[in-house]
Amino acid sequence: MVKLRDRRHRDRERRFVVEGARELSCATESGLALATLYYCEELLATGARGLVDRVAATAAECQPTNRAVFERMSYRHTPDGVLGVASMPDLELGRLPETADALWLVAAGIEKPGNLGAMLRTADAAGVAGMVVADAATDVFNPNVVRASMGTLFSVPVAVANGDVVHDWLDRRRIRVIVGRPDAVVDYHRAELRGAVAITVGSEHAGLDARWSSPRHEAVRIPMAGRADSLNAATAAAVLLFEACRQRRESDSTPG
Amino acid sequence: MVKLRDRRHRDRERRFVVEGARELSCATESGLALATLYYCEELLATGARGLVDRVAATAAECQPTNRAVFERMSYRHTPDGVLGVASMPDLELGRLPETADALWLVAAGIEKPGNLGAMLRTADAAGVAGMVVADAATDVFNPNVVRASMGTLFSVPVAVANGDVVHDWLDRRRIRVIVGRPDAVVDYHRAELRGAVAITVGSEHAGLDARWSSPRHEAVRIPMAGRADSLNAATAAAVLLFEACRQRRESDSTPG
Repeated sequence: MVKLRDRRHRDRERRFVVEGARELSCATESGLALATLYYCEELLATGARGLVDRVAATAAECQPTNRAVFERMSYRHTPDGVLGVASMPDLELGRLPETADALWLVAAGIEKPGNLGAMLRTADAAGVAGMVVADAATDVFNPNVVRASMGTLFSVPVAVANGDVVHDWLDRRRIRVIVGRPDAVVDYHRAELRGAVAITVGSEHAGLDARWSSPRHEAVRIPMAGRADSLNAATAAAVLLFEACRQRRESDSTPG
Repeated sequence: MVKLRDRRHRDRERRFVVEGARELSCATESGLALATLYYCEELLATGARGLVDRVAATAAECQPTNRAVFERMSYRHTPDGVLGVASMPDLELGRLPETADALWLVAAGIEKPGNLGAMLRTADAAGVAGMVVADAATDVFNPNVVRASMGTLFSVPVAVANGDVVHDWLDRRRIRVIVGRPDAVVDYHRAELRGAVAITVGSEHAGLDARWSSPRHEAVRIPMAGRADSLNAATAAAVLLFEACRQRRESDSTPG
């Protein structure tokens, strides 16, 4: 259990941890099957009993634990008394829906689990068809991704692949690729963000590598004032995604 | 030193800690006077020497420390070997600039230092005239605010006041108050966000209290798809601020 904090162990065992009532609830509602549910009566919030019963019904095994053991297993400062272990679902590109004119988010080389989780939450709110994690420098089953995503890791269609495979997939699907770059010439809100479009943001430090700057890729910038070098990667994704949503809504309400 | 991690101690001593080369550099460039600069040769990055010298020149006292002592003082997992203590600057509303037609950010009741810091970084990038922290549930001198703000805590004009005082200030300055609420009727991008406008976002859990819903306050919503209840408070602030920036730029480039 405690070893699953480490990515190598997760990858080897193909299992990961989902902690917290909210997260487990999202996970099981989205069809994730739990191998084991651990719970600690003493730590459970009042009213969490029903949730434990619902989640337990989907788990192969259900283990009550005492407080000391639970706190050892928990990844949190103030655990809420429920924690599950599940097999990693398969995150191939082929699982993503075939939606026409859809909005996608591509997150390339993201390093911080908190940013990847925040992007999932934002992608969910923006109503993307799916999110593609390219050349991930953190894995999506990191407990901090699960947490920061507020459970949307399980409801947003997510795929993980290396950058070259993602490029092929985008080409094959004829999805226009909009890349956010501080050095781009076109302001993001002057670009056409309707139709089949993938908003693409790069890593916190290195940005997007050279493979994301071909004539195939439409670079846009978010004009910035101020003295900080850049927006946070998850914030940049939010600004670009919600501008795409705005343009889509504006054209829906324009007659003709 | 270690006691300054605790808000009560910070408030009593009116001192706080600024850790990290980047943050100290922003702080001293923005005119913050350090009482003491602590540094640890062994931990300093190559090339950080010049920065230490520049910062040291503004500090009343300069203390070399050994690695064990520095790591004890540090708030970070991987400290970069510089850390300063400064007197808290006065953050009264009166310090904010008198800018006509300016864009402002009001953050009301924010609980998480990371969110307050992220808002500062976004406010800086959006070029606000200033940020007002109302009814703060976390103090702006929390080390995680300093860190998440990437040093913009020192460059963005910031004021802290209780909600009633902020309301008076907004009235007196004739600043229109745009409040983000999930239950609002008007979509944020259909609201007029040019001119003297304060984008106002509430706390992560409770949102904005009743004092922010009078006819004086123009409620807007960010339309959301998906299953999560809401956007993160800092993300909502980013979407609203950058829409205000977009509208301002669009009207600048429209002839007449």
